[in-house]
Amino acid sequence: MTAEAGHPANGLDEVVHQRVRLGILAIVHEARRVEFGYLRAQLDLTAGNLSKHLSVLEEAGLIEIEKGYEGKRGRTWITLTPAGGTALADEITRLKQLIARVEPGTS
Amino acid sequence: MTAEAGHPANGLDEVVHQRVRLGILAIVHEARRVEFGYLRAQLDLTAGNLSKHLSVLEEAGLIEIEKGYEGKRGRTWITLTPAGGTALADEITRLKQLIARVEPGTS
Repeated sequence: MTAEAGHPANGLDEVVHQRVRLGILAIVHEARRVEFGYLRAQLDLTAGNLSKHLSVLEEAGLIEIEKGYEGKRGRTWITLTPAGGTALADEITRLKQLIARVEPGTS
Repeated sequence: MTAEAGHPANGLDEVVHQRVRLGILAIVHEARRVEFGYLRAQLDLTAGNLSKHLSVLEEAGLIEIEKGYEGKRGRTWITLTPAGGTALADEITRLKQLIARVEPGTS
């Protein structure tokens, strides 16, 4: 095997693979549209930490962040973009390849 | 679902999950004992970047690093510790849980 072919880990994108961001993308994929507070509770994060990771994903075009109101309370909603759906699917594909190398015969 | 149960992403350990370190652990698991240069080629890393990640894994007790000689050439060999094997297996378990949430019905 050449260095160029390399290991499935080489194909993982750090923007998507990072633990918190992978959690965000997986939850938003599952729920379609999620509120900031829900994500924060699900992932057990501080608001600051969640905001930081949401910004990385938004700048990469993987999510959309929408601010609005529910009654008088400000709310932030997060949805997955088509590029975000593709990026999550690519990550899952590579993770499966990696798992298959770690557990030969079980895939 | 409570925040405490939360998402499978919460259970991922950043020491193991980080892209390069996950690659290192997977390759060392597969090959049992690997040489530094082989890892570097497989993961397409600079020596400095690989060394940094190996130190993190060694400090966490997940790998053993052994320096020796092959003829007159210095060589560095890496093996997985039992704790490293367990940590990799835990990571794979949680990744499978996460994949099952993203792809319901395919698991």
